[in-house]
Amino acid sequence: MSTFSVKAFGATSADADLALMQIERRAVSAKDVEIGILYCGVCHSDLHTARNEWHNTIYPNVPGHEIVGRVVNIGSETTKFKVGDLAAVGCMVDSCRVCDSCKEGLEQYCAEGNIGTYNSNDVHLGQQTFGGYAQRIVVDEDFVLHVPENLDAAAAAPLLCAGITTYSPLRHWNVGPGKKVGIVGIGGLGHMGVKLAKAMGAHVVVITTSSAKVADAKRLGADEIILSTDGEQMRESAGSLDFILDCVSASHDINAYLGLLKRDGSLTLVGAPEHPLPVAAFSLIPGRKSFSGSMIGGIQETQEMLDFCGKHNITSDIELIKMQDINKAYDRLLQGDVKYRFVIDMASLSSED
Amino acid sequence: MSTFSVKAFGATSADADLALMQIERRAVSAKDVEIGILYCGVCHSDLHTARNEWHNTIYPNVPGHEIVGRVVNIGSETTKFKVGDLAAVGCMVDSCRVCDSCKEGLEQYCAEGNIGTYNSNDVHLGQQTFGGYAQRIVVDEDFVLHVPENLDAAAAAPLLCAGITTYSPLRHWNVGPGKKVGIVGIGGLGHMGVKLAKAMGAHVVVITTSSAKVADAKRLGADEIILSTDGEQMRESAGSLDFILDCVSASHDINAYLGLLKRDGSLTLVGAPEHPLPVAAFSLIPGRKSFSGSMIGGIQETQEMLDFCGKHNITSDIELIKMQDINKAYDRLLQGDVKYRFVIDMASLSSED
Repeated sequence: MSTFSVKAFGATSADADLALMQIERRAVSAKDVEIGILYCGVCHSDLHTARNEWHNTIYPNVPGHEIVGRVVNIGSETTKFKVGDLAAVGCMVDSCRVCDSCKEGLEQYCAEGNIGTYNSNDVHLGQQTFGGYAQRIVVDEDFVLHVPENLDAAAAAPLLCAGITTYSPLRHWNVGPGKKVGIVGIGGLGHMGVKLAKAMGAHVVVITTSSAKVADAKRLGADEIILSTDGEQMRESAGSLDFILDCVSASHDINAYLGLLKRDGSLTLVGAPEHPLPVAAFSLIPGRKSFSGSMIGGIQETQEMLDFCGKHNITSDIELIKMQDINKAYDRLLQGDVKYRFVIDMASLSSED
Repeated sequence: MSTFSVKAFGATSADADLALMQIERRAVSAKDVEIGILYCGVCHSDLHTARNEWHNTIYPNVPGHEIVGRVVNIGSETTKFKVGDLAAVGCMVDSCRVCDSCKEGLEQYCAEGNIGTYNSNDVHLGQQTFGGYAQRIVVDEDFVLHVPENLDAAAAAPLLCAGITTYSPLRHWNVGPGKKVGIVGIGGLGHMGVKLAKAMGAHVVVITTSSAKVADAKRLGADEIILSTDGEQMRESAGSLDFILDCVSASHDINAYLGLLKRDGSLTLVGAPEHPLPVAAFSLIPGRKSFSGSMIGGIQETQEMLDFCGKHNITSDIELIKMQDINKAYDRLLQGDVKYRFVIDMASLSSED
């Protein structure tokens, strides 16, 4: 299969800084779309993978799965895109397409495992997939999304992971008018959760450990704030929420949050704490409550989310960085020092030799 | 309020054996039904309460909330029962009746807390409620159930707690034809879960740590058995179940069972382990799975369950004991030495002086 070479930033080992490298992309085949990457969001998963914190990284690793760019080339049989379209790629670039989940448009739960945008098996080139910290990417059109032209392209990039990861469970658990929704953890994911739940018409309650976040939570659209460190506020709010979206990826006391749910409420985890979370039987049984999880969203739903964001003019709060500043950005990410998502301006990569 | 005295068996302190005592019942008022108790099942909650293991017991304590008997007296305004009816009382004898849960027929989740059959606040007499280890009980007709006459009255008693506790979640999570349902923990609750799920038309999979339970699980109606101690069987069965009813009240590894669920599956706890159960984020997120709880069932649903059992001729497997043998029975209960429920023959109480 013919390939072409592009500039990228990646890691060659768990303890190496990300640095410039050349990677191969396949030449577009019949159903492919080639995208000139304009922006790529920086997800915490990028850092986990680059540093092999999930113990499954294949090196070299080029992270990045919040990709927005312009279509620069299309295959002979593509029907969904034309050159010049504003296009996006999220966490997946393919799946088995024949299992029940794929047939239902839930490719993220593909029985064979979806093909991740990076660090997965690239069957075309017999290597690992390389992500969006690069000049270009070539993806089957079925896994490419349209980005509404009214959105700021840089600020739209995080919608492809942080956006869909929060949008999908909000929809699945029927968040909307008349529902009270709690959002725990106001970071890259949580700040999108607040914006999306608000646009869906729900009453949005931000639950935070930090009084420093109150003003910002209100600015993002929260109708109400609960300080989880204030026992009285927590007691007063017991049994008041229909649904809680839990975006915290550190260890935390799930039982305290489960207490805020109404009967039949669900608390859904989208952050992924490293250690198991202890759940008391009596947090669930007396109110028929659920503790659940949700992972990104399917391709069709991702498009629906982008269209929803276009309609409601929703994007991520971002800090635009140069590709060369990625290692510094990772350090700041670990300190929680970003409001709320780093996005790489890929034009900075062109200046590299 | 006028009262009358009946013989009962109860505990006067956490470390006292249950012994004969006299308790007061209210004389029937307009909407009350007085039941001559024939049989009372022995639930693990009885033992927990008698021994103050939940740290909330008011002494003296008369346990028992799986009560079947004959109506011997009715109030002037009762419309649902007549003298001679085979009647039953389960875990609740009243609730606030005005909260959302009560209005929806989910009195078990009453916002004020339902009034338990024992160890709750008896507003009529200004004392704690006394349960079914007694000759008679007086209950508002709205909390009394009809027992199908074709059922063995003694073996029907455990339906009032073990039956409804398993029936309600099986219905709530839509168990029926075409669904594969796992039942974990084959004891008082679990053996009812197997019978009920089978009668609902599901494919029933018993998951057990003990090969000694295989034959009995099949006799109860299991279509399939998974030995949870056999890693290969567990791996082969990964992602195969739509729903799991978890009846284990000891600490156990929830994550192993969550792995058996299909996408969007729920594992529902009806046993109540003392210590919190550690749940890994990655047990829930990659399949949008839920870990949930369920508590008994509402009055209307309890009647529906009894009618369902009448139609399908379902009762509990029981060992009938005399009231005087209750302390021995508690010891055997702790050793798991019962198949599958002790039921007290209340006639034995009449011989006591």
